[in-house]
Amino acid sequence: MTAIAHDVVGIGNAMVDVLVHADDGFLAGQGLAKGAMALIDAGRAEALYGEMGPGVEISGGSAANTVAGIAAFGGRGAFVGKVSDDQLGRVFGHDVRALGVHFDTPHSVGGAPTARCLVVVTADGQRTMSTFLGACIELGPDDIDEAVIAASRVTYLEGYLWDPPGAKAAFRKAYEIAHGHDRQVALSLSDPFCVDRHRDEFLDLVGDHVDILFANEAEIVSLYQVADFDEALQRVRGHCRIAALTRGAHGSVVVAGDEVHVVPAHPVARVVDTTGAGDLYAAGFLHGLTQGWDLARCARLGGLAASEAIAHIGARPQADLAALAVEHGLG
Amino acid sequence: MTAIAHDVVGIGNAMVDVLVHADDGFLAGQGLAKGAMALIDAGRAEALYGEMGPGVEISGGSAANTVAGIAAFGGRGAFVGKVSDDQLGRVFGHDVRALGVHFDTPHSVGGAPTARCLVVVTADGQRTMSTFLGACIELGPDDIDEAVIAASRVTYLEGYLWDPPGAKAAFRKAYEIAHGHDRQVALSLSDPFCVDRHRDEFLDLVGDHVDILFANEAEIVSLYQVADFDEALQRVRGHCRIAALTRGAHGSVVVAGDEVHVVPAHPVARVVDTTGAGDLYAAGFLHGLTQGWDLARCARLGGLAASEAIAHIGARPQADLAALAVEHGLG
Repeated sequence: MTAIAHDVVGIGNAMVDVLVHADDGFLAGQGLAKGAMALIDAGRAEALYGEMGPGVEISGGSAANTVAGIAAFGGRGAFVGKVSDDQLGRVFGHDVRALGVHFDTPHSVGGAPTARCLVVVTADGQRTMSTFLGACIELGPDDIDEAVIAASRVTYLEGYLWDPPGAKAAFRKAYEIAHGHDRQVALSLSDPFCVDRHRDEFLDLVGDHVDILFANEAEIVSLYQVADFDEALQRVRGHCRIAALTRGAHGSVVVAGDEVHVVPAHPVARVVDTTGAGDLYAAGFLHGLTQGWDLARCARLGGLAASEAIAHIGARPQADLAALAVEHGLG
Repeated sequence: MTAIAHDVVGIGNAMVDVLVHADDGFLAGQGLAKGAMALIDAGRAEALYGEMGPGVEISGGSAANTVAGIAAFGGRGAFVGKVSDDQLGRVFGHDVRALGVHFDTPHSVGGAPTARCLVVVTADGQRTMSTFLGACIELGPDDIDEAVIAASRVTYLEGYLWDPPGAKAAFRKAYEIAHGHDRQVALSLSDPFCVDRHRDEFLDLVGDHVDILFANEAEIVSLYQVADFDEALQRVRGHCRIAALTRGAHGSVVVAGDEVHVVPAHPVARVVDTTGAGDLYAAGFLHGLTQGWDLARCARLGGLAASEAIAHIGARPQADLAALAVEHGLG
């Protein structure tokens, strides 16, 4: 059997976030659905960026943020995602490798620039995202290295990866390799609109190929097209082995067969920017899981990591999460 | 006479800052002089970046930061500086134009990428900078538009501009146009090592072509090669019309012939990152001056703007400085 080299390998859309502050009127004027992620083409990205105020560029990407969190907890991470050989691609590669994360996906060759996500942060800390996928559309099964997947305890896939058409095949190849090597597969549903776009396929995935599911309230309700959270909870229970459901300020609920945990959110002095909250919850949860912790403790570690992410601008952790965990009795 | 269209036109090296946190050991290991700015070539930039942790990219450039501050006070700004037509160049152009600043310097054509400044921020908030000038070396007199300079109350030049050889001619052309139109010329000495590199020329500039001089303690002591601040103060008094000398936590001293003001620093709860403190002091001072305020009030406004800049990561203001000024009785 292959030796473990990575706790978590994340596979996702590799991008740089451009964060700006604006008010609700800006969102309305630009037709942006608050709190959601919309896909935009190059022309729309150019036009929207032109309307936005000065920004801050910070590496992002949902699964990449999660792997950055794993590294900040002292875990061993790997990432698979496609950037172009351009300035933003070099920024992305530098930032993830600087954390000690293994990242060697070949550059795109088709000429599309590195993906970016235009993130509008409102005064309430909520983030609204518009993503230009750029080079991400070139990710394919050839980018999935069996040796890396086989050497990872958990293969973590973001639902957003279902958007670029070629990535589905990469996605499938990855979970097949993982299961072939008795490794676990985790999936984040990413966004309720993303769930809308791919509901039937996500339902199959969750039922047949996913061991650990991450979703927030809107996403899990959308997946099962039910009226409320509790109904969704009954549906997901038994549908996949472990479901970690986040509810913002209401904390999280973890269900795994007969086991159910309702864990409060970690308190936050001020919500600055929720970008990455879900990604970092997954990081904390998976870090605990790969250390062999019980599910309730995994959920608390997820909540702690999420609370760090929402206390500053940008999705990537700024604190030493390992030290923070020790400080809060979760080391 | 040309009508006023801009309060301040800044001319400087256009660049994007890459900010990372590190400790003093990192500075020592990389041979970096704490608090200073060193020029580096492309190879060194690549190597140093490779050693640095994950970063945050924020538009910078000394004079550009000052003009951004003018805009944040509600003043009218223009900027002249050279970027390449690449991703970081588009970030720089977007961020400055998004503030309402006039910026139409043609892109570089020589193939060098947009300049960047690798900024290491230590736990004490001090910043240590390594600058790769890139496209900035192409700035020349053809980039100085007489109409813009003639329409600006103050032409503000950063001393760093003396580093790329072609920019000197642009620098001279700009102050000659400004004075030809009875406008004022301001200069920032930028950095003590920069003063070392260009002392004789800076002394001529200050004596013959500059109306308003900005310098911190290390720079003004270096300019006159004297033992202490007070000696430098005696030398600069009468050497140029107005000198605004910043002293960090000790506030600032303004001398203009017989007039002298010693103004305390604006209190700061926590020094997060001093990047841009001097640039923003100049912004506040010049905003006051172009509104016709007395010099003591200009100095207080400078101190207020500097205090905002050092309370967060990045040089560009994040607050509405006009509102902040009103809040502190300086509106």
